Amino acid sequence: MIYFDNSATTKPFKEVLDSFVTVSSEYYGNPSSLHSMGAQAEKLLSQAREQVSTFLKVKPAEIYFTSGGTEGNNLAIKGSALLHKNKGRHLITTSVEHPSVRTAMEQLEQEGFEITYLPVDEFGRISVANLEKEIRKDTILISIMHVNNEVGTVQPITEIGALLKKYPTILFHVDAIQSVGKIPLSLYENRVDFCSISAHKFHGLKGTGALFIREGARLAPLFSGGNQERKLRSGTENVAGAVAMAKALRMTFTKAEAGLEGMQKIQSVLRKGLTEIDGVQLHTPNEKAAPHILNFSLTGIKSEVFIHSLEQKGIFVSTTSACSSKKKSPSKTLLEMGVPETLAESAIRISLSFENRMEEAITALEAFKESAKQLRKVMK
Amino acid sequence: MIYFDNSATTKPFKEVLDSFVTVSSEYYGNPSSLHSMGAQAEKLLSQAREQVSTFLKVKPAEIYFTSGGTEGNNLAIKGSALLHKNKGRHLITTSVEHPSVRTAMEQLEQEGFEITYLPVDEFGRISVANLEKEIRKDTILISIMHVNNEVGTVQPITEIGALLKKYPTILFHVDAIQSVGKIPLSLYENRVDFCSISAHKFHGLKGTGALFIREGARLAPLFSGGNQERKLRSGTENVAGAVAMAKALRMTFTKAEAGLEGMQKIQSVLRKGLTEIDGVQLHTPNEKAAPHILNFSLTGIKSEVFIHSLEQKGIFVSTTSACSSKKKSPSKTLLEMGVPETLAESAIRISLSFENRMEEAITALEAFKESAKQLRKVMK
Repeated sequence: MIYFDNSATTKPFKEVLDSFVTVSSEYYGNPSSLHSMGAQAEKLLSQAREQVSTFLKVKPAEIYFTSGGTEGNNLAIKGSALLHKNKGRHLITTSVEHPSVRTAMEQLEQEGFEITYLPVDEFGRISVANLEKEIRKDTILISIMHVNNEVGTVQPITEIGALLKKYPTILFHVDAIQSVGKIPLSLYENRVDFCSISAHKFHGLKGTGALFIREGARLAPLFSGGNQERKLRSGTENVAGAVAMAKALRMTFTKAEAGLEGMQKIQSVLRKGLTEIDGVQLHTPNEKAAPHILNFSLTGIKSEVFIHSLEQKGIFVSTTSACSSKKKSPSKTLLEMGVPETLAESAIRISLSFENRMEEAITALEAFKESAKQLRKVMK
Repeated sequence: MIYFDNSATTKPFKEVLDSFVTVSSEYYGNPSSLHSMGAQAEKLLSQAREQVSTFLKVKPAEIYFTSGGTEGNNLAIKGSALLHKNKGRHLITTSVEHPSVRTAMEQLEQEGFEITYLPVDEFGRISVANLEKEIRKDTILISIMHVNNEVGTVQPITEIGALLKKYPTILFHVDAIQSVGKIPLSLYENRVDFCSISAHKFHGLKGTGALFIREGARLAPLFSGGNQERKLRSGTENVAGAVAMAKALRMTFTKAEAGLEGMQKIQSVLRKGLTEIDGVQLHTPNEKAAPHILNFSLTGIKSEVFIHSLEQKGIFVSTTSACSSKKKSPSKTLLEMGVPETLAESAIRISLSFENRMEEAITALEAFKESAKQLRKVMK
C-alpha cells in the first residue's frame, strides 16, 4: 500500500500511541484535582505545553490545547469577532481558505459582520497590495492560511506580517494546519496573534490540536466552564492527547530536519513524471509551494474514477480536500485560481509525509501512467 | 490505592484503550476520504454511533460526537441561543449547574440574553412548580442537570418533561454527564431535546463525548467547517475516540446491570460509617440521589487538609468538583442548598465507579475515622 493522502490525515506514529496509552492508563487523574494524581496529570500537561511551545518558538502560556484544527480556526475567528464586535465588524480572509475558516466567516456574515474574501492569482496566491487596500478602520481580524490544503500554495505571510506592523490593532490569524513541521513560520516576527495546528496532520491523534494565542491578544471562549486553559478553553484537559501531540511534533521536527530534502526530491520526481503523462495538467505552482502537496488533473477523467483505479493498484490519493470530497462539487481553490470547472472536476491531490519513500513515488508514477492509459482508452 | 474520585475522572478500561489503539493504527483513514480507507473509518464511526444510540435508546442520527461534556453543554446552550434569538432571549437553568452550563449562561447574559437561575431546596433540588412560574413567552431553552456533580442530587427530570409537554416550543437540555449508565433516563418520554454525556466519566477517554440532538431540534454549530456530524459539529472525526466511547458505554451498562446494587450497598455502608464519625455532616440527600456520590463535611477541618491526610493513607477523594477545586471558593451547590460557608469549606466528595469494591469502602472508612481523629486533635 502506498499512502499519499497525508493532508487528509496521517497514520499515528507508534511512539505517539504508546505515550497516549501510558498516560491514559497510568496518569489518568484530572489535572484540576487537588490530590497527587491530579498534580501528576497537571505536570504532564505542562510539559506537553512547554514542548509544543518550544517547537513553535513561543511561550508555554501562549499554547492552548484544542480538539483539532477546526476548533482552533473557529475559536480564533469567532472568539475574536465576539469579543471585539464593538470595535469593528469587518474581517478579511482569502477566497481559498479551508472550510473551517470560510464557513466560520459565513456564519459571522449572518450575524451582521462584513467579510472581505481576497481573490487569488493563477497560483492560488493573494496580493499583499490588494490586502492593504481592503483594510478599513473597522477591520478587527485578518485570517490567512499559511499553506493551502488543496494545492500547496504558500501565502506571503512574511509580507503580510510586515504590512500589519502598520496596523497594530488588527488581529492576525494564521491557519498553519498544513504547514507546521514542513515550512518554518516565525510567529513573533510575523506578528501573528493566533495560529492553529492539528495533530493528526503530523502523525498525532485525531481530536487533538493547539491554538497559539499571543500574550495580550484577546478573544472570547467558545467553551465556557471550568476555566481550564486560562479560561479560554474549558473542559477536562485531554492530557494523554496533549502529550501524544507533543511527541508527534517532536518526531516530525526531527524527521523534517533529516527528511525535508528527500521529500522535495520525491515531489520533484512526481512532478516531472506527471507532466510526462499525456493529458496531465499540474495545478500546484512551481514556486512558493509546500513540499508535500501536488495537485493535478488528468483531463477528461473525473477525480473519483481515477482515485478508484489507483486504489485498485494499492495507491491512496484524494480528490481535493477530504472535507470537501463528498460534496461532489469541484475544488473551490482551483476555481478561484481560474481553473475551468471541467478540469477542476478531474483534480487529484497527492500529499506526502516524511514517512514516504522514493520507491513509492516511482511505483506510484507507473500506476498513474497505467491508470491514465486504461481510463483514457475506456473513454474513447 | 483506593480511588474515590470517579466523578472527576475515571481510569479508562483496558479494553477501551485497546480499541482506541487498534482503530488509530489500523483504520486511520479520514472518514471523509473517498477511498476504501475513508470508507472503513466511516463504517467504524457509524457503528460507534449506532452503539451509543442503542444505549441512550435514541436514533443513530441523533448522536453527535463531541470533544466532551463541556463542548456538549456549550453547544446545546449557545447553539440554541444563537439560532433562536429572534424567537426569544430568555433561558432557564438552576443555580447548581456545572460550570460549563453556568458560565455558558453568564456569557449569554453579556450578549443580552436573560437567564433565570432556579433556586434549590436543602436537598439541592429545584421545584417544578417554581420552574413553571418562571416560563415566559420568550423562553427558548431550559437546561437542567440530571444528577448534580457535587452532591449527587437527582433533579425531577420526569416531572419537568411532563410539564414541558405543555410548552412544545421550548427546548429542553439535560446534562447527563454524571448520571449516564447509573440512572436510567428516557430521553424521548421526557421530551428531552439535547442531552450531553462525557466518556471519561465512565471509563472512556478524555476528549470524547456526545450530544444527543433530537430529530427536529435545531441549533447553530459552534464549529463550522467541513460539515461533519450533519453540519452541526465540523472537524475531522475522532473515530478511534468514538469507538472507544461506544465500548466504554457498553461495558458500563453491562457492569451497571450486575453492579448497581453493589454500588448502592457500598454507598450505604459509607453513609452509615460516616455518620458515626464525630463531627461529620452529610450533604448528599438520603433520597432521590445518585448511587455513586457522597458529599460530607468534617466540621472545623478544611477540605484540602482532610484530602491530603487521606491521600497519605492512599485514598483519593476531592473537595467538590474537580473543575472548581482550584478556585478555593466553597462549593456553589452547597451554598445554594443553604449550607453555611464554614461548613461548605470542609466539604469532601466521595465518588464511586462500578470498579470499586466493598473492601475499599471499609478500608476507607477506617482511614476517614483515623484522619478525622488526628486532624481534630491537631486543631485542639
